[in-house]
Amino acid sequence: MVTQRQLEFTTDGRGSRDITDDVDAVIRSSGVVCGITNVCVQHTSASLMVTENADPDVRRDLETVFTRLAPDGDPAYRHDLEGDDDMAAHARCVLSDVSLTLPVADGRLLLGTWQGVFLWEHRSHRQHRRVVVTVIG
Amino acid sequence: MVTQRQLEFTTDGRGSRDITDDVDAVIRSSGVVCGITNVCVQHTSASLMVTENADPDVRRDLETVFTRLAPDGDPAYRHDLEGDDDMAAHARCVLSDVSLTLPVADGRLLLGTWQGVFLWEHRSHRQHRRVVVTVIG
Amino acid sequence: MVTQRQLEFTTDGRGSRDITDDVDAVIRSSGVVCGITNVCVQHTSASLMVTENADPDVRRDLETVFTRLAPDGDPAYRHDLEGDDDMAAHARCVLSDVSLTLPVADGRLLLGTWQGVFLWEHRSHRQHRRVVVTVIG
Repeated sequence: MVTQRQLEFTTDGRGSRDITDDVDAVIRSSGVVCGITNVCVQHTSASLMVTENADPDVRRDLETVFTRLAPDGDPAYRHDLEGDDDMAAHARCVLSDVSLTLPVADGRLLLGTWQGVFLWEHRSHRQHRRVVVTVIG
Repeated sequence: MVTQRQLEFTTDGRGSRDITDDVDAVIRSSGVVCGITNVCVQHTSASLMVTENADPDVRRDLETVFTRLAPDGDPAYRHDLEGDDDMAAHARCVLSDVSLTLPVADGRLLLGTWQGVFLWEHRSHRQHRRVVVTVIG
Repeated sequence: MVTQRQLEFTTDGRGSRDITDDVDAVIRSSGVVCGITNVCVQHTSASLMVTENADPDVRRDLETVFTRLAPDGDPAYRHDLEGDDDMAAHARCVLSDVSLTLPVADGRLLLGTWQGVFLWEHRSHRQHRRVVVTVIG
């Protein structure tokens, strides 16, 4: 049994948002009780992550860490056509995840209490993002 | 055909342990011969990785690399409620993998000779960890 | 419905190559119209990534970023049996992905316009690499 849906999000520039409920809604509509779900962002400058859903400082600190690992406007970059955040955004996607596969049980995502699924925008400005959710069970 | 099991591990603080045989045991019990298996840790401060299973120095060196990328007790972190290793552990999870999907062939994980699946504890102290294994084929 | 194939590639040393068409060929031969495909490299010093397929400078800059995050020949490494690139290659694999799961729609990979799937060689010299592709739908 396979169900596939496209979700659309408008981001507010760099930062992450919890899309766990959006993914769960697709699973619910699929009728799959036990299986897996794949979540895949269709871009190279936005990504996905599973991280803590309680204290927003965790995601703030992740911005600090990732800004160090792939700084904006690094003079070593050759790819800078779309601005200082362009290449940094691509690197941040490779360091996190463009696609996540997670277990489904009892007709919903099987995650730990403190886990959420986040869409992570890496560009500075507002973007329109597509995310494909596929449920198999 | 879908089989899902929860595995439980008690870790000894920061470090990684080979759980390849534990995952293989779930696959064997599922009866799936060809397909995929998803392994998903239900926490935000422990993760999974596939890396070399021969020389333990590889995993020691990975600790060195990850300690640099996300240092413990960095004064820039705001999230430090549970100690110096708290935020570093979350960042190390995002840099590695909370969930892995791997091929199944001949009723077991299809991996290269030198590949193992490791549960990676990022907190300093002993923790109880749950890992969900889902086999589809 | 499950189809599994092994692909083989000879790399030219460190660098990445677009294998999107190779993965798509397996999907086409599987007859799966809607589902997911798992791509898994069977080594610990080559990895996979999804990134921009248009400007090759993106992948050049990713080499710059990853060389900083896991430098070759770092004196802190203990694992250096096969040379300066040995441990760096293992670390680069953990920071990117050994395995990717992506959606299939209309009998092919469902990716964004600018996304490609790349096999990323992290060793300095030419290697023979196996990649397992599993299609489920």
